[in-house]
Amino acid sequence: MSWSGFKKSMNRAGTTLLQKTGQIERTVDQDFTTEESKYKTFEKECAALQKDGKAYLDAMRAMSSAQLRLAETIDTFYGASDRSSDGAMAAHAYKRSVEELDSGISRELDAPYRTAILDPLGKMNAYFPIINEHISKRNKKLLDYDAARSKVRKMTEKPSEDPGRLPKAQQEHDEAKEIFELLNDQLVREIPVLLEQRVPYFDPSFEAMIRMQCKFAEEGYEKLSGVQRYFDDKVRDDYAAGQLDAQVEGVLQEMRELSICSAA
Amino acid sequence: MSWSGFKKSMNRAGTTLLQKTGQIERTVDQDFTTEESKYKTFEKECAALQKDGKAYLDAMRAMSSAQLRLAETIDTFYGASDRSSDGAMAAHAYKRSVEELDSGISRELDAPYRTAILDPLGKMNAYFPIINEHISKRNKKLLDYDAARSKVRKMTEKPSEDPGRLPKAQQEHDEAKEIFELLNDQLVREIPVLLEQRVPYFDPSFEAMIRMQCKFAEEGYEKLSGVQRYFDDKVRDDYAAGQLDAQVEGVLQEMRELSICSAA
Repeated sequence: MSWSGFKKSMNRAGTTLLQKTGQIERTVDQDFTTEESKYKTFEKECAALQKDGKAYLDAMRAMSSAQLRLAETIDTFYGASDRSSDGAMAAHAYKRSVEELDSGISRELDAPYRTAILDPLGKMNAYFPIINEHISKRNKKLLDYDAARSKVRKMTEKPSEDPGRLPKAQQEHDEAKEIFELLNDQLVREIPVLLEQRVPYFDPSFEAMIRMQCKFAEEGYEKLSGVQRYFDDKVRDDYAAGQLDAQVEGVLQEMRELSICSAA
Repeated sequence: MSWSGFKKSMNRAGTTLLQKTGQIERTVDQDFTTEESKYKTFEKECAALQKDGKAYLDAMRAMSSAQLRLAETIDTFYGASDRSSDGAMAAHAYKRSVEELDSGISRELDAPYRTAILDPLGKMNAYFPIINEHISKRNKKLLDYDAARSKVRKMTEKPSEDPGRLPKAQQEHDEAKEIFELLNDQLVREIPVLLEQRVPYFDPSFEAMIRMQCKFAEEGYEKLSGVQRYFDDKVRDDYAAGQLDAQVEGVLQEMRELSICSAA
């Protein structure tokens, strides 16, 4: 920070303090406050959308690759026993389906998801620091204006011995007011324009997101329901009736009877 | 480790070293080696299944909760503009679907997935340290047996002045051989029984896993395809034709024309 920048920021800190103790009047522009609050909500929403949008994509890929590793292990597992058993055939079909699903995700979902959702969000989010810079500049200029106004008021109430000081302070006040109003009006006028555009801007992204989530589920269902053909309906009914728990328990019981499965 | 335990482990380390330099003959039981190798593969597969099975569940839940947070933000987003617009209605339907999906996961998938998949895997995995303990004990007793045999051979080749030493060494040898063979035979006999049981044991888990993955996809598809009704087919065609990218670009162009979107 330059020396003049440092002086300015010290003066503004002083103004803020005097405003807190009620010695300098604070300008409040209700129009600005309303627009700023809507803008801040929008900024927060966009940050959340980018974070969660990324989390969704990561989770979708993590799920698909966990599924792929499971399918590979299960396929080896059955392959090592009897390749022509029902289990081995189901495992093989499962592996094939999950491979297609996983490569389909990389091919059809990953890149389009970035293009249609994450990129537009990223582009929007890149504007917030710039707009925040405008807001912060407007707030600094407001402090200068409040300080200049207070100075003129004090000199009017208690005239200085130097007759040139009041007109100089008045000129500083007029300049500060003009700069502040220029920046303030710009924000009050343009923030609503920005907020108006958020719906047409994000409409395609949201629609693409819902369509892709649906597509992901649809492909998963199509591929995996094919694998279910390998299962007996009987097994499904047994499963529902809790009889397969009994099968697992039965095996565990047999294992407990092995001496190598008891403490050495 | 007790003093006698320490002495034993030093002696075994000595035997291993002498075997490496070829001074003590090493017993190799091909049957055991084959079974142990199959067992080790099974152990590795079970560890991978547990890790990936957990990763799948975590990813499924992460995906569902990212989806839920996205839907909430999008709903607020549209709700703040025009609650009766097509976008707002689609966003609301999306939120409702995703809420149902998320609560359906907690209710219908989370607990059954644990019961049918993670718990049986956990129970199986709990046996491996016990079995490994048996294998490690068998390997230690094998070193004792190899050492005792070598001792007898040396005494036979180069008889001791004390005539009592050979019979004592022979007795130690017979005892070591008996203990080793007992443990070895147990493993060679029981590992195949354990491995035989792995298919009936895991069959229900694998089937449940595939069914649940399918169910998850099916529910996602059912719920989200309902939301797609709110979208124009026209929009879908526009999207495919890349015209919605143009819409996004158009809005970005308008934003660039705002002074608050250029450097302050």
